[in-house]
Amino acid sequence: MYNIVQATGGVCASEGFFADGISAGLKKDNALDMAFIYSDSECEIASVFTTNKMFAAPIKHFRAKGEFKTNFVLINSKNANAMTGKVGVDDIDEVLSNCSEMLNPIMSSTGVIGVRLPKEKIIKGMKLFDIKKKNPNNAAKAIMTTDSFSKEIALKVTLDDGSSFSIGAMAKGAGMINPAMATMLCFITTDAKVSKQEMQEILDEVTKTTFNAISVDGDTSTNDTVLLLSNSRSGAYDREAFKEALFKVMHFLALEIVRDGEGATKLVTYKITGAKNNADAEVVAKTLSDSLLVKTALFGEDPNWGRIASTVGASGVEAYEQMLKISFDNLCVYDRGRLNFDAEMEKKCAVVMSHKKFTISCDLGVGAGSFKAYGCDLGYEYVKINADYRT
Amino acid sequence: MYNIVQATGGVCASEGFFADGISAGLKKDNALDMAFIYSDSECEIASVFTTNKMFAAPIKHFRAKGEFKTNFVLINSKNANAMTGKVGVDDIDEVLSNCSEMLNPIMSSTGVIGVRLPKEKIIKGMKLFDIKKKNPNNAAKAIMTTDSFSKEIALKVTLDDGSSFSIGAMAKGAGMINPAMATMLCFITTDAKVSKQEMQEILDEVTKTTFNAISVDGDTSTNDTVLLLSNSRSGAYDREAFKEALFKVMHFLALEIVRDGEGATKLVTYKITGAKNNADAEVVAKTLSDSLLVKTALFGEDPNWGRIASTVGASGVEAYEQMLKISFDNLCVYDRGRLNFDAEMEKKCAVVMSHKKFTISCDLGVGAGSFKAYGCDLGYEYVKINADYRT
Repeated sequence: MYNIVQATGGVCASEGFFADGISAGLKKDNALDMAFIYSDSECEIASVFTTNKMFAAPIKHFRAKGEFKTNFVLINSKNANAMTGKVGVDDIDEVLSNCSEMLNPIMSSTGVIGVRLPKEKIIKGMKLFDIKKKNPNNAAKAIMTTDSFSKEIALKVTLDDGSSFSIGAMAKGAGMINPAMATMLCFITTDAKVSKQEMQEILDEVTKTTFNAISVDGDTSTNDTVLLLSNSRSGAYDREAFKEALFKVMHFLALEIVRDGEGATKLVTYKITGAKNNADAEVVAKTLSDSLLVKTALFGEDPNWGRIASTVGASGVEAYEQMLKISFDNLCVYDRGRLNFDAEMEKKCAVVMSHKKFTISCDLGVGAGSFKAYGCDLGYEYVKINADYRT
Repeated sequence: MYNIVQATGGVCASEGFFADGISAGLKKDNALDMAFIYSDSECEIASVFTTNKMFAAPIKHFRAKGEFKTNFVLINSKNANAMTGKVGVDDIDEVLSNCSEMLNPIMSSTGVIGVRLPKEKIIKGMKLFDIKKKNPNNAAKAIMTTDSFSKEIALKVTLDDGSSFSIGAMAKGAGMINPAMATMLCFITTDAKVSKQEMQEILDEVTKTTFNAISVDGDTSTNDTVLLLSNSRSGAYDREAFKEALFKVMHFLALEIVRDGEGATKLVTYKITGAKNNADAEVVAKTLSDSLLVKTALFGEDPNWGRIASTVGASGVEAYEQMLKISFDNLCVYDRGRLNFDAEMEKKCAVVMSHKKFTISCDLGVGAGSFKAYGCDLGYEYVKINADYRT
């Protein structure tokens, strides 16, 4: 039917897209802190934004424009332009007046909340942009905040008729990541010939099982944004192929974000089955991935399945002690009332938990609902990073 | 109308009540680990239990008895007797068969989940009880798990006609404390002449604004229990006086539990006003007191009001950037769109946050709903305690 292979070039992998990152002096030590994505022909836009009621100025600015096409996205780190009221939106207008040759330019920001945008620095920085540059990795680095590595991917999709299209993407996010879309920014480019409506439908659907299935600390940011830009330049498209490739792109980036969770040492998949319905399974998966007691036990590599059971019970969904099964990878530690946890099993489980990646499975035994969420542990580094983020 | 004064004697302050703690070898180093409360005349019981679906064997055992009176409560620490199925309940029957001279004895447990009760040790330990002892502080110590101090209080209430009654109580709880009743145990005795029904009504009401308003880590335990025993021996009673005294007792113990939050260094009151209704205010207060980003900022003494605003927005209730007011004690840092946060204000706020106790107020400006919740910060010690609780 179609073939999907990994490609190089990040957000520039799609035809006609350019990107770069520069240093405008927002971060210390001349670190990259401003990026752009430019397409040399106009793009349809699909988007998903935070559910936070205090959504930041860039989101207000975007929403105020109604339906529109664009060819330019400006991104800054270090300042979120959130809780800045009307002046925050005016600041964006002023900044973007410096690229009035672009078609409806978009701005996106991440960083500290409640401080006005350093407009002068940003406007100066924009003068350093060369919109014909293809430095996707610089762009991916410039949007980082507490991220310890940049996050990029590109896929090339070849259809049966020999035609092909690409999807490229970059993301940032490490802390403040929560199932309900949180500060993560993700920018996806494609040259697939997809309609705006279909692109939005597919983006919404894929977001549910990727970015909305991850959690670092259960907090939801003011700035979360996923932007998908399509310039249709390849002329190629197939709905199933596009959806699968988009899932692969977003799934990869979502897991990269969890892997980079502030101070995280482990990537844990919570696989919930047997719930009354999928919604219940999602509640359990996210309650587990958000539980401080579970996360600290993971950090300590302590196979404390009692905390898993207790958290399932605390999640509020239909669940019974006599129906529940709990496993670490393929080791079943509690089987519907049978305690399978002796000293030998504890040792085996501790080995599983010493790995960088493993799965905690809970079968609730009451229905056919299932959901997979992804989380990480919480250790000293998380506290260290977050106890003094502003300085 | 009436007069309430502090008294000594903890759970033994009420007439006819006895209590002691002994060491049965459940904890290391002969630490106290078993306690009893005995009344030399029968008691009516009011109770509140955890909302966790995996509620522990002692709660199943209690509920299976239906309506009953008692004169004896046996409490052990170190083992929660949770996730132990029917054998967990049978184990309680076997243990309590060793005090068959008591009237419907009750058992209550706290500790590790998913391990069977060490019955032999407990039964041996019971032989050390002298039910005519009044050592309330030993009892309060014996029920501790990760608590760093024991928690007790007693009040004497004198009515206008000169009659008087007492309320005495002890509690344990440090981690795993959550607004929806969590491992905390609290045992309250009174000699007030109060009916079972009225006692239960008042207990339910007072629980909402005391134990259900505190949070250490947002997790809800399998064993949470508040038991209120009344032997009516004083012959005295007044509803308002009883309610006020019970509130004072439970409010004090709830705050003691937060103050003893695992690794906590600060006790923070979240005072929410101007919400659409009280339920919304409660959601905001509890979302704030559970937020990892807020808790780590508190630990770092970082007046990061942006995280407060973001968390209000993330809580899902009706809230607007232009209506919100945020204060640290009486310092207003954000006033309905006006950023009041300059370097001088930041310094002043940092001073407030350096205190052991302070209040974070949020006025949502959309209605008349209010709620107060109590929380603590989260630092390295929390991680240390919880990364390896089992060993």
